[in-house]
Amino acid sequence: MEAMAASSAVARPTLRVAAFCGSLRKGSWHSGLVRAAEKLCQESIPGLQIDHVDISSLPMFNQDLETGDGEGFPPDVEAFRDRVRAADCFLFASPEYNYSITATLKNALDWGSRGKKSCWADRAAAIVCAGGTFGGGRASLHLRQVGVFLDLHFINKPELHIRGYEDPPKFDAEGNLIHAETRERLRQVLLSLQAFSLKLQPKEK
Amino acid sequence: MEAMAASSAVARPTLRVAAFCGSLRKGSWHSGLVRAAEKLCQESIPGLQIDHVDISSLPMFNQDLETGDGEGFPPDVEAFRDRVRAADCFLFASPEYNYSITATLKNALDWGSRGKKSCWADRAAAIVCAGGTFGGGRASLHLRQVGVFLDLHFINKPELHIRGYEDPPKFDAEGNLIHAETRERLRQVLLSLQAFSLKLQPKEK
Amino acid sequence: MEAMAASSAVARPTLRVAAFCGSLRKGSWHSGLVRAAEKLCQESIPGLQIDHVDISSLPMFNQDLETGDGEGFPPDVEAFRDRVRAADCFLFASPEYNYSITATLKNALDWGSRGKKSCWADRAAAIVCAGGTFGGGRASLHLRQVGVFLDLHFINKPELHIRGYEDPPKFDAEGNLIHAETRERLRQVLLSLQAFSLKLQPKEK
Amino acid sequence: MEAMAASSAVARPTLRVAAFCGSLRKGSWHSGLVRAAEKLCQESIPGLQIDHVDISSLPMFNQDLETGDGEGFPPDVEAFRDRVRAADCFLFASPEYNYSITATLKNALDWGSRGKKSCWADRAAAIVCAGGTFGGGRASLHLRQVGVFLDLHFINKPELHIRGYEDPPKFDAEGNLIHAETRERLRQVLLSLQAFSLKLQPKEK
Repeated sequence: MEAMAASSAVARPTLRVAAFCGSLRKGSWHSGLVRAAEKLCQESIPGLQIDHVDISSLPMFNQDLETGDGEGFPPDVEAFRDRVRAADCFLFASPEYNYSITATLKNALDWGSRGKKSCWADRAAAIVCAGGTFGGGRASLHLRQVGVFLDLHFINKPELHIRGYEDPPKFDAEGNLIHAETRERLRQVLLSLQAFSLKLQPKEK
Repeated sequence: MEAMAASSAVARPTLRVAAFCGSLRKGSWHSGLVRAAEKLCQESIPGLQIDHVDISSLPMFNQDLETGDGEGFPPDVEAFRDRVRAADCFLFASPEYNYSITATLKNALDWGSRGKKSCWADRAAAIVCAGGTFGGGRASLHLRQVGVFLDLHFINKPELHIRGYEDPPKFDAEGNLIHAETRERLRQVLLSLQAFSLKLQPKEK
Repeated sequence: MEAMAASSAVARPTLRVAAFCGSLRKGSWHSGLVRAAEKLCQESIPGLQIDHVDISSLPMFNQDLETGDGEGFPPDVEAFRDRVRAADCFLFASPEYNYSITATLKNALDWGSRGKKSCWADRAAAIVCAGGTFGGGRASLHLRQVGVFLDLHFINKPELHIRGYEDPPKFDAEGNLIHAETRERLRQVLLSLQAFSLKLQPKEK
Repeated sequence: MEAMAASSAVARPTLRVAAFCGSLRKGSWHSGLVRAAEKLCQESIPGLQIDHVDISSLPMFNQDLETGDGEGFPPDVEAFRDRVRAADCFLFASPEYNYSITATLKNALDWGSRGKKSCWADRAAAIVCAGGTFGGGRASLHLRQVGVFLDLHFINKPELHIRGYEDPPKFDAEGNLIHAETRERLRQVLLSLQAFSLKLQPKEK
C-alpha cells in the first residue's frame, strides 16, 4: 500500500489545497477543521497537501482600492490572490451565519474574483461546515451558488455538515476536532476532493 | 390630496426606514439609490422618512469582540444596532457580487442579529438592486433567505432589479439615479414598503 | 377564556386555511401533518379552520390545456382554483425530494398561479415538513422563493422541520403524528399563521 | 479539420446526451431548444449525439407505485430510467415557472433518483432556458441545487438564459430557434458539456 502510494507520488505531483476558514473567532470550529484536514493529509493522504490561507486581515472589498484598470490590488490582497492562483483545488471551512455564508468568507471570494482573470476558475472545491440543526447546510448551498460564477467545481459527495451542539462533543474548547468518526468523514471529503481534482486536470500535460 | 396627507399624518406617525448601501465604492449606484429614495420620501411620500445608516466602518464580525455574555459590542457596532432597532422598516440597496450579496452588507446583517434579541426582528423590508443582466436578482434571493432567520418580512412586489449597463443610462458617473422611469419604479417600491409596514404594525396601540 | 374566544369570534370571522399535502403516498407523513393540523384547529385554536385541498388528481400543468385566452381551465383545475381563492391563508405540508419541493406540490402551485389574477396573491402561508437530517429544510427554502413570485407572505417563525427518522418516533405506519412535542410545535406554527394572517388583513372592513 | 474530427472519433466513442424538455406545451421554446441541439450535434459537433427523452407521459411520482423493495417501477418509468442510465451526460431544457423548475421536470428527476442506485449519478450536465427578464435564471439555480443530491456535475460556463420576449425574436410560433446568435451560444454550451464530460470520464478505459 505504501509502495503504491510512493509510486503514484512519482507519477503525479502533489496537489495543493488552499484551505480557508470563514470564521475569525479564535476557538473557531472551522479553523479546527482546517487544522484537522492539514494533519489528515500529512498522516494518511499521500499526494494531497493543505495550504491554510489566512483571510482574516483582508480589507473589506472596495472597488476604489483597485488600481491600474482593475488589475492592481492592495499588497495583502495581491499576496492572497497569488496563493489562490497557485492552488490546485480548494477547501472551504464555512460557518453558517443567519442562513448564509460569513462576510469574512464572501469578502475573500470577492477579492479573488476580480481582475481580468478570476483566481478561482476551473478547479475542484469542497465545503465542510459545522453548526446547529442543519450543520451549516444552508450556507453551503449559497456557497455553491457563488461557485457557479467563480467557475468552481464542487464535489457533491460526501457532504460534511456537523451538528456541533449535539452529543457526543465534536470539538474541544479550542476548536480542535476531537471526534474520531467526524475526522474519518472529513478524510472521506478530502479523498473525494483529491479524486475529483485529478479528474479535472488535463489528461496529458 | 395634501390635506389628506396632512390629516393622515396626524392619525399615524411617520415611519422611519433605515436604509443600507451594500457597496463601499464612492460612486456606487447603490448609494445613489439610497439618496434617490431619501429625496423621493421628502418630496412625494408623506409619512415615510429615510435614515441612511452608514455600514462602511463596521469591523468585520468576530464573536471575540463581543463582551458581557454576548450583549456588549464595540462602540461603532452599538451605534449601528441602536439605529437598526429604532427603525420601523428597512430598505436594502444590495449589489450582487458573484451571484450573492456583498460582504459589507452581510457583515452588517450579522452584527445586527447578535445578542439575546435580534435588532431586525418582525419588521417589513424591501430590496433594490442594480447590476448586469439579472439586475442583481440572484443576490436579492439570498438576502431574502437570510431574512427568514432574521425575521424580516420582505415585500414581494414590485421588485426593482435595474440592468445598469443597458441604454438608456440609469446612473451618472457619481452614481446618481438619473432615469425618471426607474425613479418612479423606486417610488412604487417605497409605497409598497410603507403599506406593508403599516399592515404589520399592531392594530391598536 | 372560552368567553373571550367566543367574543372574538363575533368580532372577526373564522379564518379558512387551505392545506396541501405534497406527497401522494398513502401513509405519507405529510398528509398526517395535515390531519393533525385539522384536529388541532378543531380542538384548541378558535378562529382557525383547516380545509384540506386534495391536489393528487390535478393533471400535469400544460399551457395547451388552458382555454379562452388563458382564463379557462380543466374542471378539476377550476375546482382547485376556487378553493385556493376562497382561502384566507395557506398551510403547505411539503416533503423534500432531492433537495427541493415535490412535483405534485409544484404542479398545484403552478396551476393556481395562472390566469390574469393569481389565486395565491397577498395571503399568509406556513410550511411544515418532515424528512431526513435537515427535516425538509432545503425544500422549504425553495418553496419560499416560489412564494416571492406568487406573492405569498410566509411566517418566519417558528419553523417546523421534523427529523422523521430519529427516535423517538414521530409518525406511525399510517403517517399519523404521534409525538406530543411535535404536535405542540405544529400548534405553535398554526397560531403564528393565524396571527400573521390577521395582521395582513385590511384594518377596517 | 474534418480529418481531425474523424481521427478523434476513432480515439474516443461518441458521447450520448440524454436531453429533456421541461415543458409540455406543443410549441414550447424548450422543445425547440432540444431540436436545435440535436441538429447542431449532427451538423457541427463530432462525437456528441442528442437522445431526446420524452418525459411527458411519466405518471406523477408516488412511492406506492414502486414494487419489490423500491427496485421495481411502472413500465414507462423503467424505460425512462434505462435511457437515463445509458446516457453519458445530460442536457436540461428547463423553463422557469414561478421562480423554480417545472413539475414535469422535477417529476422526471425524482423518478430517476429512486432505487438503490440513482440513474443520474456522477455525470456532466448542462442547463439551457428561455424566459422573461431573467431568461429562466432562477430556475436553473434550483436545478443546480437538486443536482447536488443527484450527484450531477453541471458545467458553469457558458450559461444560456434566453430572454424570449425581447427583440429580435428568438423562436417562431412552433418554438423553433430562429436566431443565429442564440444558436451559436447553444453550440458553445454543447461544446463545453462535451469537454467537461470527457474530463469526468475515467482516464484509462
